[in-house]
Amino acid sequence: MPGIETHELAKMPSGPGRVPVTCIDYSPDQFQIQEVTDLDAFLAQHRPAWSAVRWINVDGLTDMRVLRSLAEKYQLHPLAVEDVLHVHQRPKVESYNSGADDLPRLYVVLRMIELINDHPRSEQISMFLGRRTLLTFQEAPGDVWNPIRQRLAQNDSRLRRSDASFLLYCLLDAVVDACFPVLEHYSNRLEAIEERALAADPQAIGDLHALKHDLMLLRREMWPVRDLVLSLQRQEYQTVSDTTRLYLRDVYDHALQLIDLAETYREITTNLTEVWMSAMSNRLNEVMKVLTIIATIFIPLSFFAGVYGMNFRRMPEIDWLGAYPWSYPVGF
Amino acid sequence: MPGIETHELAKMPSGPGRVPVTCIDYSPDQFQIQEVTDLDAFLAQHRPAWSAVRWINVDGLTDMRVLRSLAEKYQLHPLAVEDVLHVHQRPKVESYNSGADDLPRLYVVLRMIELINDHPRSEQISMFLGRRTLLTFQEAPGDVWNPIRQRLAQNDSRLRRSDASFLLYCLLDAVVDACFPVLEHYSNRLEAIEERALAADPQAIGDLHALKHDLMLLRREMWPVRDLVLSLQRQEYQTVSDTTRLYLRDVYDHALQLIDLAETYREITTNLTEVWMSAMSNRLNEVMKVLTIIATIFIPLSFFAGVYGMNFRRMPEIDWLGAYPWSYPVGF
Amino acid sequence: MPGIETHELAKMPSGPGRVPVTCIDYSPDQFQIQEVTDLDAFLAQHRPAWSAVRWINVDGLTDMRVLRSLAEKYQLHPLAVEDVLHVHQRPKVESYNSGADDLPRLYVVLRMIELINDHPRSEQISMFLGRRTLLTFQEAPGDVWNPIRQRLAQNDSRLRRSDASFLLYCLLDAVVDACFPVLEHYSNRLEAIEERALAADPQAIGDLHALKHDLMLLRREMWPVRDLVLSLQRQEYQTVSDTTRLYLRDVYDHALQLIDLAETYREITTNLTEVWMSAMSNRLNEVMKVLTIIATIFIPLSFFAGVYGMNFRRMPEIDWLGAYPWSYPVGF
Amino acid sequence: MPGIETHELAKMPSGPGRVPVTCIDYSPDQFQIQEVTDLDAFLAQHRPAWSAVRWINVDGLTDMRVLRSLAEKYQLHPLAVEDVLHVHQRPKVESYNSGADDLPRLYVVLRMIELINDHPRSEQISMFLGRRTLLTFQEAPGDVWNPIRQRLAQNDSRLRRSDASFLLYCLLDAVVDACFPVLEHYSNRLEAIEERALAADPQAIGDLHALKHDLMLLRREMWPVRDLVLSLQRQEYQTVSDTTRLYLRDVYDHALQLIDLAETYREITTNLTEVWMSAMSNRLNEVMKVLTIIATIFIPLSFFAGVYGMNFRRMPEIDWLGAYPWSYPVGF
Amino acid sequence: MPGIETHELAKMPSGPGRVPVTCIDYSPDQFQIQEVTDLDAFLAQHRPAWSAVRWINVDGLTDMRVLRSLAEKYQLHPLAVEDVLHVHQRPKVESYNSGADDLPRLYVVLRMIELINDHPRSEQISMFLGRRTLLTFQEAPGDVWNPIRQRLAQNDSRLRRSDASFLLYCLLDAVVDACFPVLEHYSNRLEAIEERALAADPQAIGDLHALKHDLMLLRREMWPVRDLVLSLQRQEYQTVSDTTRLYLRDVYDHALQLIDLAETYREITTNLTEVWMSAMSNRLNEVMKVLTIIATIFIPLSFFAGVYGMNFRRMPEIDWLGAYPWSYPVGF
Repeated sequence: MPGIETHELAKMPSGPGRVPVTCIDYSPDQFQIQEVTDLDAFLAQHRPAWSAVRWINVDGLTDMRVLRSLAEKYQLHPLAVEDVLHVHQRPKVESYNSGADDLPRLYVVLRMIELINDHPRSEQISMFLGRRTLLTFQEAPGDVWNPIRQRLAQNDSRLRRSDASFLLYCLLDAVVDACFPVLEHYSNRLEAIEERALAADPQAIGDLHALKHDLMLLRREMWPVRDLVLSLQRQEYQTVSDTTRLYLRDVYDHALQLIDLAETYREITTNLTEVWMSAMSNRLNEVMKVLTIIATIFIPLSFFAGVYGMNFRRMPEIDWLGAYPWSYPVGF
Repeated sequence: MPGIETHELAKMPSGPGRVPVTCIDYSPDQFQIQEVTDLDAFLAQHRPAWSAVRWINVDGLTDMRVLRSLAEKYQLHPLAVEDVLHVHQRPKVESYNSGADDLPRLYVVLRMIELINDHPRSEQISMFLGRRTLLTFQEAPGDVWNPIRQRLAQNDSRLRRSDASFLLYCLLDAVVDACFPVLEHYSNRLEAIEERALAADPQAIGDLHALKHDLMLLRREMWPVRDLVLSLQRQEYQTVSDTTRLYLRDVYDHALQLIDLAETYREITTNLTEVWMSAMSNRLNEVMKVLTIIATIFIPLSFFAGVYGMNFRRMPEIDWLGAYPWSYPVGF
Repeated sequence: MPGIETHELAKMPSGPGRVPVTCIDYSPDQFQIQEVTDLDAFLAQHRPAWSAVRWINVDGLTDMRVLRSLAEKYQLHPLAVEDVLHVHQRPKVESYNSGADDLPRLYVVLRMIELINDHPRSEQISMFLGRRTLLTFQEAPGDVWNPIRQRLAQNDSRLRRSDASFLLYCLLDAVVDACFPVLEHYSNRLEAIEERALAADPQAIGDLHALKHDLMLLRREMWPVRDLVLSLQRQEYQTVSDTTRLYLRDVYDHALQLIDLAETYREITTNLTEVWMSAMSNRLNEVMKVLTIIATIFIPLSFFAGVYGMNFRRMPEIDWLGAYPWSYPVGF
Repeated sequence: MPGIETHELAKMPSGPGRVPVTCIDYSPDQFQIQEVTDLDAFLAQHRPAWSAVRWINVDGLTDMRVLRSLAEKYQLHPLAVEDVLHVHQRPKVESYNSGADDLPRLYVVLRMIELINDHPRSEQISMFLGRRTLLTFQEAPGDVWNPIRQRLAQNDSRLRRSDASFLLYCLLDAVVDACFPVLEHYSNRLEAIEERALAADPQAIGDLHALKHDLMLLRREMWPVRDLVLSLQRQEYQTVSDTTRLYLRDVYDHALQLIDLAETYREITTNLTEVWMSAMSNRLNEVMKVLTIIATIFIPLSFFAGVYGMNFRRMPEIDWLGAYPWSYPVGF
Repeated sequence: MPGIETHELAKMPSGPGRVPVTCIDYSPDQFQIQEVTDLDAFLAQHRPAWSAVRWINVDGLTDMRVLRSLAEKYQLHPLAVEDVLHVHQRPKVESYNSGADDLPRLYVVLRMIELINDHPRSEQISMFLGRRTLLTFQEAPGDVWNPIRQRLAQNDSRLRRSDASFLLYCLLDAVVDACFPVLEHYSNRLEAIEERALAADPQAIGDLHALKHDLMLLRREMWPVRDLVLSLQRQEYQTVSDTTRLYLRDVYDHALQLIDLAETYREITTNLTEVWMSAMSNRLNEVMKVLTIIATIFIPLSFFAGVYGMNFRRMPEIDWLGAYPWSYPVGF
């Protein structure tokens, strides 16, 4: 369509203190992405009539004015806005019934865990879903959603023909699926430790403890995600369409699989601690057996050598010819 | 408003045997705090017509007459009054249907845990909620509610425009949130022990045991609080407004987070016990290895030295030139 | 009222083979207690018209005729009667719908645990509740209900104004509350063991094992009591009044607290076993360190001493002046 | 009634390959037991008109024709018939709605555990319940039901006046109650091991492991029995009368008690393993302490003895008068 | 029926890159099996009018065109098609309500575990069930369904007279039952390890760890199968007939038994680790006892021998006649 400018999908760098805000509008046959520099001017504008879904993504929570302007414009509930700012929320979904019909009334918060340079990094994601609008807030730039932005830019994608709740599903799906490489990373660490545990490497225990700690935290993040997705899927939230509900079953399955895996790895670390202890106990046994064999042979022998080293005047054996075993062949 | 005197918010010291009673009245546009010295005279008086919510706070349970007067005036249920006095109640919420419509009929009891001089201190809090009245009983002066008293004194606060159940929510929220510093305190202790466990410090086990004990008690306090808040939020108590119910979801989330944290810390202490044992077992192994190496080298050598210390007459090796390794260079 | 004789409340001693039966009748303004010596004559008599509640307590199960007479008179269900006699019932409540309206149709069985001479003693209590009648069967004389008998004898007590189910509540409450001293007794034993475990006292393990065993049995007794009380409180048994139901919430809370405590103590005993093992392992380490230090120093030294005790003819060092360190100052 | 022959109640021995089939008919005033030798002739016959309940018991599954004939006559469901033959079914109750109204439509399968010569023996019991008919199949002759056969033979028993589902209850009750002696047997074994564990008997661990294994299997058998009885009691199976349902509560209680006991014993075995380990660790400590004391005293002493056994020419102490402690009194 | 060609039941080998597709049509009186070589031609054809059930089995997922053609023809839901390809699905059943009435709308996915050459091998099985059609997708050729193909070829089998959901039941049943030999294989491995654990074989711990790992994975596979079968049996899916639902109870029982067994084996492996540790600890004790006995006897003796090996001039005992025990009989 003429006149609609499509921005580069790569995320633009943000100056210090400036929170990047990106707005994507789309309908089955149109797509527009704009980087918002003047938020107030942007919010004052009317939204294009053709826009079926508008997704506003905020990449940082440092600029309070951005959040405040959006909260005012979209009448976000104060409790939810507070939760956006406190970045250690338990993953949850909440619905606020007040507000006009087409305003975002569903609030979803969870953590996005990415593997960056072999190191898991997590940030809190807040999402507000309305019938035709989705607002997302991240702690920092950088996310797992670039493939979704690319699919949105394609004219024939299913995503373009669907509503805002389907976009929410896609974002959730991407966040959940991003955990699999994290778990695989743990699985690799676990395998590396496994051999060392069987070899009773003294360092292995500290590493096992650290890994168990990480898995415990991951599991603590994942359990509520499962409930969140189940709630989105089961409860009759007006803004979530039936199609989205169907697709959310898939996210639910993946969340279950993640939890299963995390639990399994945790059990294996527990087993490995036992294996390590066993290997250690085995090694102690070996060491003690060597000591005992040496001592059992040589301590009594030493005693007998000592006996014949005594200086008693009358020790008849001393003078016997064969008393000292090697004396014969030489003494003759 | 003229003629309404606002007391200092700082809590007044109480003489021995005197239980301080504070009464706060407020409406959207008025606020009054008074320290009650003559309770009977106070209870005989009519409540000002403008007062939308009255909050009476009692800072001690030593003066039975105070409790008795209030119980009579507000027709508190005898079972609930008994629970106020027995200060080891399980946190719970109970509703008593008898009594006139605007009397306090909802009884909430839980424990307030504060961190005072790096030491957790807890006391039992009893609350009676009516449509327009809230009674709170503490074991001792000093609480976590001063910020709420300050918000009440501000003319434009949401709290002033809301009903008594919203005040109850704020108090509950403050009590639950006061547990987070306590948990952080435990987390610090845990980190300090972690290093000592890895170093197999013999004292670490006693400290771990004490910490586990504390976390166990905290968890025992927190689980019923979760049920309490859930019950307040889910069940249709007449005196709890819909808005309050919405806000209670937040308290519920915080309670869940507290329990999650307490559980996580408990698991970590359990792991640390294992880590300590492993470090100990490793150290034993090291010690035994040293012993075995020393013994394996020197016990047989000692035996051979002993052999040539024997006084047998016929020991041909004794006279050999090279039998004693160092004899050559010198003996020649 | 004239002519009504009030018996002494202290329980009368029973001759061998004689099962003491006590009958208490009361109404708001009258009270009568009688020791029944001739049960058949007693049962043939009409109950005084003024009696609002009749409580018959049987202190022993050795005389089958007593149970049979009462079962016949009050049409107790044969299954329940069987359960009275088998004294290892799981605590439970059962309702039998057959029988006339004012006969006891609710059967409650649980265990009463008392602390006698610092030693817990338990016996099975069976109770049959009708609208105006309560039958209780104990295994042996002696119980925790004397305070209730005293309250019944007071003219102005709430108990006197209430129905039979309220009496049942009071008896249950007394039975549950009698467990708190038992748990405190365990808590004291636990504290005593705690210090010994930290000191790795070898006897502590046996005591810990015994204590864990006791706590396990207690918990096994308490869990079903919780269900019993919940069932009494929740289910709509006709003979249990709404007031009683309200008061039963209190018993339920106490049962929960007991279970919480028992669980906590059990966890602590488990921890203490670990603490003991750790202390033991620590002590072993200490012992081994001493041994290793001694051995590391003296075994090599002994070897060198042994070397110069050898009788080789050519050992040049033997003749050196400074070979033996102490030879100089003296040898000169 | 004349002409009705009452068989001996003792079970008749069966020839090899012959599966004994016994048929009992009864009504409140009549009773007949017959050993069926020609099954086909028997099934072709009409059942006596006076027979209120017919119980056919098959003592073996080796003769397929017996099962096939009965399945055909009573239109047993093929799935259930298959389950009868596969003797490792999970205890369960299943209802098959097809078939005429008075045919057996309820299928119950569970295991009967007996203590024979101090050794638990178990076999699978399958039962088909109709309104007036009960079929039971056992794996082998010999069961715990002889007391029930005797009660059936008595004219005034409650059993005779009740329907077929009451007979099913009695059989279930007997099967469940037969587990108590088995558990007592385990309890005795447990007590015997307890002392040995405290004495750190090396054999005790193997015995504990075997006992734990047995208890685990028992528990695996008992859990589904509990569900089975609960389902019979709660669900509205047409062939189970209300009276039977009332009595089944008793079986349910006993099943619960069995599970409680099995769990308790299992926990005790786990504790005993810890106790054993503790005793072992204690013994190791004792042994090491002895070794260390001996070594600490004599290894340094030996060194000093060795020093003065050295042959250095210049060892001034050698010639001192008091160097050797015992030289004085004698040397003078 | 003339003209209907019955293929050999043995599976035909597939050329590289060619995915074998087999189509079976049957009705009570007819049966036809054909290997599909040209899928598009096959799908363009009309299905024979007599065919009551059509089962299309695809033995591989490498040829995307096969899946795409089938998905198009039978309007499979895109989400389900995606799941077919991702071969690490959690076992589940999902229903897609869109599509015409007689198209496959129920999607079932689970894993088939076979024991091939004493080694468990697993592959993912996806099934789409319609009223008259069943599609199954396997990862690779070879399965546990040949007995079912043989029963289908028999004219009088119940399977031939039933609908497509009954075929689904048979396939599920075969898949679940194929796990029993796998568990038996684990049971054998467990027994082999049991003896080695009691003998404290150092290798046993590694094998136990591996076995525990395998059992953990098996359990992770089996739990969702249980839920899957329960859901098929309980929920009212239109394409599942009542008869099938009845038979699925059997599959459910078998799944429960599998889980029970896997849990039991897992508990036994845990116990065996303890047994191993105990045996090891016992062996250490034995070794240490030997060492201590040797050391306690000979170290003091060596010391005394050393004493009389000292060269002090004045050692009166040296000259005594009886000082050296063996000197008398010889010295005289």
